[in-house]
Amino acid sequence: MHIPRGFRGGSAKAGLKKSGAPDIGLIVSDRPCAAAGLFTRNRFAGANIGVCREHLARGPMRGLVVHAGQANACTGAAGVEVARETAQAAAELAGCSPRDFVVGSTGVIGVLPDIAKIRAGLAAIWQAGLAPEGLLDVGRAMMTTDLVAKTAGARFRLAGKQVTILGIAKGSGMIHPNMGTMLAYVFTDAAVEKPLLRRALKQATDASFNCLTVDGDTSTSDMVVALANGVAGTGRLDAKDAAEFTRRLTGVCQQLARAVARDGEGATRLVTVRVRGAASVADARRAAMAVGTSNLVKTAIFGRDPNWGRIACAVGYSGARFDPERVALRLGGTRIFAHGQPVAQDRAALSRYLRENEEIELEISLGAGRAEATVWTCDFSYDYVKINAEYTT
Amino acid sequence: MHIPRGFRGGSAKAGLKKSGAPDIGLIVSDRPCAAAGLFTRNRFAGANIGVCREHLARGPMRGLVVHAGQANACTGAAGVEVARETAQAAAELAGCSPRDFVVGSTGVIGVLPDIAKIRAGLAAIWQAGLAPEGLLDVGRAMMTTDLVAKTAGARFRLAGKQVTILGIAKGSGMIHPNMGTMLAYVFTDAAVEKPLLRRALKQATDASFNCLTVDGDTSTSDMVVALANGVAGTGRLDAKDAAEFTRRLTGVCQQLARAVARDGEGATRLVTVRVRGAASVADARRAAMAVGTSNLVKTAIFGRDPNWGRIACAVGYSGARFDPERVALRLGGTRIFAHGQPVAQDRAALSRYLRENEEIELEISLGAGRAEATVWTCDFSYDYVKINAEYTT
Repeated sequence: MHIPRGFRGGSAKAGLKKSGAPDIGLIVSDRPCAAAGLFTRNRFAGANIGVCREHLARGPMRGLVVHAGQANACTGAAGVEVARETAQAAAELAGCSPRDFVVGSTGVIGVLPDIAKIRAGLAAIWQAGLAPEGLLDVGRAMMTTDLVAKTAGARFRLAGKQVTILGIAKGSGMIHPNMGTMLAYVFTDAAVEKPLLRRALKQATDASFNCLTVDGDTSTSDMVVALANGVAGTGRLDAKDAAEFTRRLTGVCQQLARAVARDGEGATRLVTVRVRGAASVADARRAAMAVGTSNLVKTAIFGRDPNWGRIACAVGYSGARFDPERVALRLGGTRIFAHGQPVAQDRAALSRYLRENEEIELEISLGAGRAEATVWTCDFSYDYVKINAEYTT
Repeated sequence: MHIPRGFRGGSAKAGLKKSGAPDIGLIVSDRPCAAAGLFTRNRFAGANIGVCREHLARGPMRGLVVHAGQANACTGAAGVEVARETAQAAAELAGCSPRDFVVGSTGVIGVLPDIAKIRAGLAAIWQAGLAPEGLLDVGRAMMTTDLVAKTAGARFRLAGKQVTILGIAKGSGMIHPNMGTMLAYVFTDAAVEKPLLRRALKQATDASFNCLTVDGDTSTSDMVVALANGVAGTGRLDAKDAAEFTRRLTGVCQQLARAVARDGEGATRLVTVRVRGAASVADARRAAMAVGTSNLVKTAIFGRDPNWGRIACAVGYSGARFDPERVALRLGGTRIFAHGQPVAQDRAALSRYLRENEEIELEISLGAGRAEATVWTCDFSYDYVKINAEYTT
């Protein structure tokens, strides 16, 4: 995985995770970065979320701290204090202002993270020394129930220079638009001015993390943040460059979103739900999200059953406008439903498709227009229940 | 269970269920009935739903047929034909018009129910003879994944006469407002004119079946139908009588709704989510439904964990308006969250409450107004996944 120039990071074991695994990460850019962020809309948004918004509203940023184990949410004024002190501790080490740092937090809600442990963890990272490859270590340190670290990258020419984008993300429960307990951080050495970075990140997120559902729950701590430090020496980007950057950023975010769905709690299958022929993008999203969120569709896929009835049913209650007679469904490219009725099927072949492929493609044609949307989800297994019922004590 | 006068019913084994259990029921009123019905809003509504709407739009009704095994949905023109012929077969036996019958259908979507089996089943019921207690047999015949038959009743004085209301219902997956694969039929011997019956049923359903969620999926076949035959000899009801009837009908529907939630697929606990202090009833419902539908809340209850964080999180993304600092949560009457933070808890006692009680009470005070709403749901266990992943072949 290529690391964008001018970013260095590292992780440490601060004792915030019961498991004793690395649980705190620090990333610092050599140069000030243009920064953009999107945050959870949950009314119980974490204490650090407000602090991040405040910091991002100002000028350039230098980096981020992220810790896992306790999510700094529902922690009152003390939580805000911890978030501020965390940024302060990073700033002291890096020799800049606390306002230069984003602070991410994930884990159990309502338990105040121990600022002494955070400070000690950051000091340990600093002492060991930051390195470019350390960005990937930070991706691992912020994992909670994730089974694998999620990274994605792109290297391409922009305005005559070679530039790199790297994204790191975590899932894996409470994943749903706006968003799940999902942290995604994207770094680039391209010089991208803040207004463009904001627009590009919004567009990329709408086409990636906001098309993602694991369990329909939207958490208190989620954020997507992009930092662009300009070390690659690209000059001012023209409209074509801006479009290219946005396209590449979207690609990186989509890779991360797919990886988060694939690693959803208990998931055995990544499911891509594509809706075509909708009267509007909103309708396409409604239909795709209804199918992607349906426990009945998700358990059927876990059972390797090509249950078109549950898919049609979810489309039917989604609120999207369509004529039932014009709807068609395809599973893995095979038409299973058309004209409001099931198509004669080779059920064994469809079941084999579900058994033998880790990535399942579901396509829904509404026959009501030309709008499209894609949603990534996962199947729903015993392990989801196990992870979410037996996580405690 | 008291049976309202003038209704008789019976059930038979028509061979529609693989299990060979009774799968068809017929209920006939001695006298024409005022009738009201509410139907699924799913765009893939069953063929019988359209036929029922057509029949109910006309004058009085005489009874209903319900069959289980195949839901007559996504079955095209042939499905409409089966629904019409089913009503025709009942009418031939009872000596009245096909338009006098409601036709209910539940089971697997997209498989055309065999009209020959339906005809033979109805003939067998007729030959064995209808009886008042037969209404309860119909309640059993329409069960699918239900573990227990659901009945509720009330006997009270109305306009100087003794009247009876009896309700039968089935669940138990695809249960969500507007509605799940839920059939509920309510019979009364009170004389209730159609406009009042419609209003009363709408009001009762809004306070009962529309407050019910098992898995967030809304099915293609659901209906709530009320039949009032007037055999009790009540005259025209005044405003006070109308209010009393509505109150009693609501009580019966609420008993049924609770029974459906309690018998949700895989459920081990009935969970009542009460929201108080909302700025509007819509907000109260949003918050209650977000909590009642959250897989994370439901798996935590299955795990007997008093996880206030997941409850707060669901309230936070519900879209209801409130100040996080004013929200309070109670579990079984014990305050677990206030002023935006967890309250010091006797976690062992709360966990014991979840272990030792089959009915769990969750109360959420939003501190934003005076509106209230209640939602009934169930916990989410391995068996939900088992039932919905391994149901086939």
